[in-house]
Amino acid sequence: MATTIDAPARTGHVAETTPYAWPWNGALDATRTAVLVIEAPGEAGDVDHEYVRNAEVVVATLRRGGGAAIRVLTRRASATRPFAGASSAFADEGTGEIPTDDTVVSRGVDGFFGSPLETVLRQARIERLILVGAWLETSVHSTMRTANDMGFECLLVVDACAPGDADLVANSVSMIEMSGGIFGAVGTTARVVEAYAREEGERA
Amino acid sequence: MATTIDAPARTGHVAETTPYAWPWNGALDATRTAVLVIEAPGEAGDVDHEYVRNAEVVVATLRRGGGAAIRVLTRRASATRPFAGASSAFADEGTGEIPTDDTVVSRGVDGFFGSPLETVLRQARIERLILVGAWLETSVHSTMRTANDMGFECLLVVDACAPGDADLVANSVSMIEMSGGIFGAVGTTARVVEAYAREEGERA
Amino acid sequence: MATTIDAPARTGHVAETTPYAWPWNGALDATRTAVLVIEAPGEAGDVDHEYVRNAEVVVATLRRGGGAAIRVLTRRASATRPFAGASSAFADEGTGEIPTDDTVVSRGVDGFFGSPLETVLRQARIERLILVGAWLETSVHSTMRTANDMGFECLLVVDACAPGDADLVANSVSMIEMSGGIFGAVGTTARVVEAYAREEGERA
Amino acid sequence: MATTIDAPARTGHVAETTPYAWPWNGALDATRTAVLVIEAPGEAGDVDHEYVRNAEVVVATLRRGGGAAIRVLTRRASATRPFAGASSAFADEGTGEIPTDDTVVSRGVDGFFGSPLETVLRQARIERLILVGAWLETSVHSTMRTANDMGFECLLVVDACAPGDADLVANSVSMIEMSGGIFGAVGTTARVVEAYAREEGERA
Repeated sequence: MATTIDAPARTGHVAETTPYAWPWNGALDATRTAVLVIEAPGEAGDVDHEYVRNAEVVVATLRRGGGAAIRVLTRRASATRPFAGASSAFADEGTGEIPTDDTVVSRGVDGFFGSPLETVLRQARIERLILVGAWLETSVHSTMRTANDMGFECLLVVDACAPGDADLVANSVSMIEMSGGIFGAVGTTARVVEAYAREEGERA
Repeated sequence: MATTIDAPARTGHVAETTPYAWPWNGALDATRTAVLVIEAPGEAGDVDHEYVRNAEVVVATLRRGGGAAIRVLTRRASATRPFAGASSAFADEGTGEIPTDDTVVSRGVDGFFGSPLETVLRQARIERLILVGAWLETSVHSTMRTANDMGFECLLVVDACAPGDADLVANSVSMIEMSGGIFGAVGTTARVVEAYAREEGERA
Repeated sequence: MATTIDAPARTGHVAETTPYAWPWNGALDATRTAVLVIEAPGEAGDVDHEYVRNAEVVVATLRRGGGAAIRVLTRRASATRPFAGASSAFADEGTGEIPTDDTVVSRGVDGFFGSPLETVLRQARIERLILVGAWLETSVHSTMRTANDMGFECLLVVDACAPGDADLVANSVSMIEMSGGIFGAVGTTARVVEAYAREEGERA
Repeated sequence: MATTIDAPARTGHVAETTPYAWPWNGALDATRTAVLVIEAPGEAGDVDHEYVRNAEVVVATLRRGGGAAIRVLTRRASATRPFAGASSAFADEGTGEIPTDDTVVSRGVDGFFGSPLETVLRQARIERLILVGAWLETSVHSTMRTANDMGFECLLVVDACAPGDADLVANSVSMIEMSGGIFGAVGTTARVVEAYAREEGERA
């Protein structure tokens, strides 16, 4: 017995991702993909506007293609030692908030910690995550590590993630790429846009 | 009204920890401290025996002082892509297993993921964690990040943690030290031993 | 060596709890005790005002004694089947909101599911929970079961928990009392107030 | 554009489930369904062999149909109060262990607590759970409540779940059926077998 269904979403990969072609199975399917816009309000640092602009482009492209974007507000876990920083991240640096479909608030550096993020993603049947935001070495890295353990395949968009310390970018990326991509893959804004951009009226 | 109790455990700090004197409140108390011996059996790499010897010394010192040691077996999360490595970590490289008080098995790179580690620590009323094992950038880092979100104050013993890539050690440490110790502090075997060593017959 | 500290908080038990005298170790200590005011807004049912008044008294007594009260908003997990009910619980039935120190929102019937409740309790060093709210058989029971697994010792205040179905009250209580109190103990508003009430100016 | 795929698994419902026809969407698909055989070794009680025989039949039928069976070993959370019971559940009462595909061990009454159960189910892409085992009011109920919050649609097989107290069976079932099936549905061994039985050589 056989049946007829609509064609699945366009397949392929985001070009030039390292250390492997992401997603591993070629199923780009925006409707099963979410962008996490990770932010750590109150943590120290000046964000280069370029990162925010790239994050906005990634978010807008995915949403036009049928994907979801979720703002993930993280925070320093400990209240026992004083905060090092004061000024804030993506949201407070003058470009305004990036529009997303939902917002979750975590109680740690990891966006999943004490937050409904996992259940939000499971209910939406999300399989793949694209990560943008701040800070690369802290909240973005912690969230990506946990997401990967949970079975979500992750793509870090390196030029849309603001580093706390620019000297740590190369090694932050190396850690993800270890062992053939132990936490997922790394790509760039331009290639993500290419892969997920849709013509006017084209179906997701 | 007042009452009389036994003196609390010796106070102080582990010397020369960065970026702050660990533990923050000076309560060394070995009975509320656990060493996590993190391992990733099956993941690639040759371990320099020096790291294993240091881990053994840290474990033995804490246990003599009344602390616990827990072996944490982690593993790569995804089964969708092939394993990069084959040979194994601390346990398999010829020195034999480090004796611990308990073993937990996780289902991810993070030792807390799908494991009873949190409840084991809570039931033992542990407040502080000392981390040794392999690999520094992957399982050790992920476990330390989650432990910190959970409120356990962490000390990474850098010369008792085998790196997957020696070039990443400095930056792995820098990430922990960001923002005044966002994931805890970093110290060395010699200083941990100094702080926790007990005379023969001395109480913990 | 010995030292002198302030006396610990008043000890004893809440009278007439079943199936054992709660708390097991006689440490009432309000500063390590939290009342959870559990609510399921949107779930069906009329609440007898008596339950709400009792919950208010429990909350006020604990807070005066130095304890915390946390409002826990739960919700039905599934969106796949239509909601059976419409009218709401404690909050919406005309008595106004019970004043608490904090509010957490969960993503399931269990107040811990997808919520920061555990980390809120851990950070406040809470050891004991007193449960009031709605509905006894669903959100209150699920939250109590998980709290007990986490190691919090629980007391259900049966005349401050609104049942969804009055015929199920006796058996809901029996389930908690199985095996010597598998999920904790059960008591009444009057006895909780007696145990935790403080004279004007008396220390917690 | 259209494509041709193999027919999906047989659809329909398990007959006579309450309070709604399970599964809600008619997708029986054994390959996305797992039986949880929940046990609480060491907890008190004599198990009527009838429950064990029914559990065996459910497990064997699902496995023949392409489904998985997972043994879930739970335990009393608290070590602070003495155990009420001694003899054990399903496994120890003389019928021998029910063969399953995997075993997970939890650290609480809830089979998900401190265990890899969620990640085992997610990796196997399980969507539906059929619950059998002991004890109905404690481990089975707690596991079912959490599973439902996680988004797994649950069916309790009432004549394959041993009650700790036979007087509580009716109300344990009523709690699941509240609000149109707040924790899932309830059915019987005979009807589950009917729905999932496959002819010799028939595809799942």
